[in-house]
Amino acid sequence: MRHFVEELDQLKTKLLEMSSLVESAIQRSISAVIQKDRSAAEEVFRNEARINAIEVEIDEFAINLLALHQPMAADLRLIVAALKINTDLERMGDLSVNIAQRATSLMDEPVIKPMIDIPHIAGLVQSMVRKSLDAFVTRDADLARSVLASDDAVDSLRTASYHELVSFMERDPENIKAALDLLAITRNLERLADHSTNIAEDVLFLVKGIDVRHHAEARQ
Amino acid sequence: MRHFVEELDQLKTKLLEMSSLVESAIQRSISAVIQKDRSAAEEVFRNEARINAIEVEIDEFAINLLALHQPMAADLRLIVAALKINTDLERMGDLSVNIAQRATSLMDEPVIKPMIDIPHIAGLVQSMVRKSLDAFVTRDADLARSVLASDDAVDSLRTASYHELVSFMERDPENIKAALDLLAITRNLERLADHSTNIAEDVLFLVKGIDVRHHAEARQ
Repeated sequence: MRHFVEELDQLKTKLLEMSSLVESAIQRSISAVIQKDRSAAEEVFRNEARINAIEVEIDEFAINLLALHQPMAADLRLIVAALKINTDLERMGDLSVNIAQRATSLMDEPVIKPMIDIPHIAGLVQSMVRKSLDAFVTRDADLARSVLASDDAVDSLRTASYHELVSFMERDPENIKAALDLLAITRNLERLADHSTNIAEDVLFLVKGIDVRHHAEARQ
Repeated sequence: MRHFVEELDQLKTKLLEMSSLVESAIQRSISAVIQKDRSAAEEVFRNEARINAIEVEIDEFAINLLALHQPMAADLRLIVAALKINTDLERMGDLSVNIAQRATSLMDEPVIKPMIDIPHIAGLVQSMVRKSLDAFVTRDADLARSVLASDDAVDSLRTASYHELVSFMERDPENIKAALDLLAITRNLERLADHSTNIAEDVLFLVKGIDVRHHAEARQ
């Protein structure tokens, strides 16, 4: 069993490596939007292959652990949670690529408005990502629940910015391409928040052994 | 072991029930767009809770199978594939809800163009969904590979319709709201295609024991 415990630690270490790659990608894609930092966007494109490779590696490692040992209860939940979180992290890497692509396209468009709401939404989303991953590392159910509570705030900020951007488009067709990029960026930020919510739900499943998805009452 | 074989069959049956609910939701959301069928959209909204409930049920069932038996090789791959396909199917249910919402919003807007490309993209996507699920049931690797091959066709159709819709918006600001709905619908159709691709990749993992994600050469 000594061996198995070490392998579980290795699984966690790999997942943390994956998390930190994805968090950097998110950070850089947001800098690409807000600071119009083209090299940050290019860094996101360059790191995509590494994220994809480590996703496959973690999946194989976790499935081997299931095959070679007969994990029960908490260990089994850890491995299943790792498989799910791994999938979410890979998709979050894809979303950072989408954001970086739109950031690049936006650099070639006239500035249509001060991007007050994007830094605000981005800040909230980054904090949700950070908290959901911290909750996994420290097995902190309260921290995981705080992530679930933030999701609605991101949704309503995004809805407000949607209507604002549509009226910018209607006012001047010159704004359309840039507004579409900004709409795509806020949509991708919202999807990052959704994946953080998934991770927080997996942490609650891991720590509490309960499935809180689609059960508002169990999230309290 | 007799018992375990029966339970694996039950897992497959549950997943097929989930697939058929999700396929109906996709079909209805597309009817809501193309035939402006408001009751089809409402049916999609009504069935969302059932899809969410069965997702949780399948996850619990699969995790119990892992916990109670010590599945090896092919059985283990089947259970892991079921867990992954289950997640994809639930997200596909969410995407149908998104499409049905945009369809409803579109019914209140003036018609801006004959929707020639949407039925075309929708037809392709529905065939990808069908084939990926058939490939799972019949463990047909060739059929799974044919799904991977269709993904590029959907992407390029969507890119073409994106540019067409942007020019509609630029031509007349009156078109903006309807064009945004149509953009969202094609985007959600493309995401349905992405999830079918994920399922096809899981089928290849299940049948061949190889991971083809991010490895173009292994998909041949």
